[in-house]
Amino acid sequence: MSKHIAFIGVGNMGNPMAQQLVNAGKQVKVFDVSEKAIKIAKETGLNVVNSLDELLSNSSAVISMLPEGKHVQELYLGENGVLTKISQDSLIIECSTIDIETSLKIGDHAKSLGIKMIDAPVTGGVMGARVGKLNFLVGGSQEAVKLATPILEIMGQKILHAGEQGSGVGVKICNNMSLGISMIAASETLMLAKRLKMDIKKVHQIVKEASGNNWALANYTPIPGLTDGVPSNNKYRPGFTAAMMKKDLKLANDAANSVNANTPLGKAALKIFSDFCEEGDADTDYSGISKKIGGDTWDYPFDPKGKD
Amino acid sequence: MSKHIAFIGVGNMGNPMAQQLVNAGKQVKVFDVSEKAIKIAKETGLNVVNSLDELLSNSSAVISMLPEGKHVQELYLGENGVLTKISQDSLIIECSTIDIETSLKIGDHAKSLGIKMIDAPVTGGVMGARVGKLNFLVGGSQEAVKLATPILEIMGQKILHAGEQGSGVGVKICNNMSLGISMIAASETLMLAKRLKMDIKKVHQIVKEASGNNWALANYTPIPGLTDGVPSNNKYRPGFTAAMMKKDLKLANDAANSVNANTPLGKAALKIFSDFCEEGDADTDYSGISKKIGGDTWDYPFDPKGKD
Repeated sequence: MSKHIAFIGVGNMGNPMAQQLVNAGKQVKVFDVSEKAIKIAKETGLNVVNSLDELLSNSSAVISMLPEGKHVQELYLGENGVLTKISQDSLIIECSTIDIETSLKIGDHAKSLGIKMIDAPVTGGVMGARVGKLNFLVGGSQEAVKLATPILEIMGQKILHAGEQGSGVGVKICNNMSLGISMIAASETLMLAKRLKMDIKKVHQIVKEASGNNWALANYTPIPGLTDGVPSNNKYRPGFTAAMMKKDLKLANDAANSVNANTPLGKAALKIFSDFCEEGDADTDYSGISKKIGGDTWDYPFDPKGKD
Repeated sequence: MSKHIAFIGVGNMGNPMAQQLVNAGKQVKVFDVSEKAIKIAKETGLNVVNSLDELLSNSSAVISMLPEGKHVQELYLGENGVLTKISQDSLIIECSTIDIETSLKIGDHAKSLGIKMIDAPVTGGVMGARVGKLNFLVGGSQEAVKLATPILEIMGQKILHAGEQGSGVGVKICNNMSLGISMIAASETLMLAKRLKMDIKKVHQIVKEASGNNWALANYTPIPGLTDGVPSNNKYRPGFTAAMMKKDLKLANDAANSVNANTPLGKAALKIFSDFCEEGDADTDYSGISKKIGGDTWDYPFDPKGKD
């Protein structure tokens, strides 16, 4: 009997990632603790098992995609956790976006048992996962990354190796802090132009070509009618929620505090997204922050909780 | 006798812009009130005249490139200002980065006299001016912009028409607010990675390819050794000074206040650059803000006032 890939956490991201592996001809067993995720996994034809023991027995690799560090810590380091159940020839690919400390703690424990592990959080969101075009931000030894690459290449388009284990989540945190700032900056830029009664379409075109450009302004434009296929054109339905961006900015803020780094705009961005979430917009796409910035000038279609 | 171009303000930017016109075979007379600028203009072979009357007599176009709104207002609207001395067939090309209100005031007065005017501030800095590769951000009527284009094309590579008169400075202000935020965000991102003991070169490469990218991070990188030909590789000698960035962020803040726009990160960036200038680094390149962000982790060559 050939070995299979054990996939833990088949939510919005994990489900389409597991599907990509199945579509590529891999043997995949999946596990989740969420009844909703299990139901959808069964409906979409994934091979759902009922226990970690069943999942991990005779597995060649473990992939996990969970919401937060506490879940990942419990999964791997808990009393009957993954590290108590797998052999030295297993490879762990941990894809959750979590704090560096937890990632390092699990990595160190795995290493002490002779088990190879990489951290490999992703960018590209649900759409990227559905079409196998995620980018993996990877931390781990050359050897472990080499072993993982054929699997990652099925789910992703770019495998970006940042350094030793823990560096994947490290670079993800730095990247998303920059992204959160960019989304607010893009909103401020366009909404200031609007208040000044300028042609916002022309301003967008010009700033995109000039030194004020950032990824969010150009590719995930927070105002409708300027860029095709973005959530701002679909009433700000996510996409990537404001709650997720707040979580990532919080991870960046905690990381910065832990090493006494100075991140004034990162902290300001965290406050702005936290307020937005508290005001009832946690489930809105994060580009909806333009509504909060725009204030009473903001007059675009906004129905983040509506049905398509 | 053929008509000439009257060029007012031949400092760091104006001098090389006027040189481009001369090199292209244009008749150019120049004027400045700064003895230093006049001395350099003479040394570099420009045709310096001693009065506005001499400058403007028989001129076909007036180009101005001055430091601040108050200078531009005095030049055009002062008792013996330009608008009292030129005829209706003159074209005004106002290239200074100033407040929208002053730009509109001069434009309205010119219009009442039947004189065509465009505002056309630039991006690309001294290096762009020297090689004729500025970008012009232009506001004005289609007719005036069409008349100005052959002259602008000598000095610039892109002529970006944003809307009616005043829109050029409007889009410049929006763009540079975004740029000021971006430079601080790039510094926070890279210095956080450094504090976290990550490989800053790999982090830079990865974020550049990912959603955390912005123009400053990619093209004007605030840490040495990552991008060729930027001031961070030359001990932060300008380039574009922190004082100039502070001025532009102040223009953005004033514009935002005038229309009650919400620009929290723009305001935070103004505070950070103001503090940096007050601490003695006004003449440093604006990418030197990475030193202020980096704090005691910052250990790169820094000698912004040294001689090349």
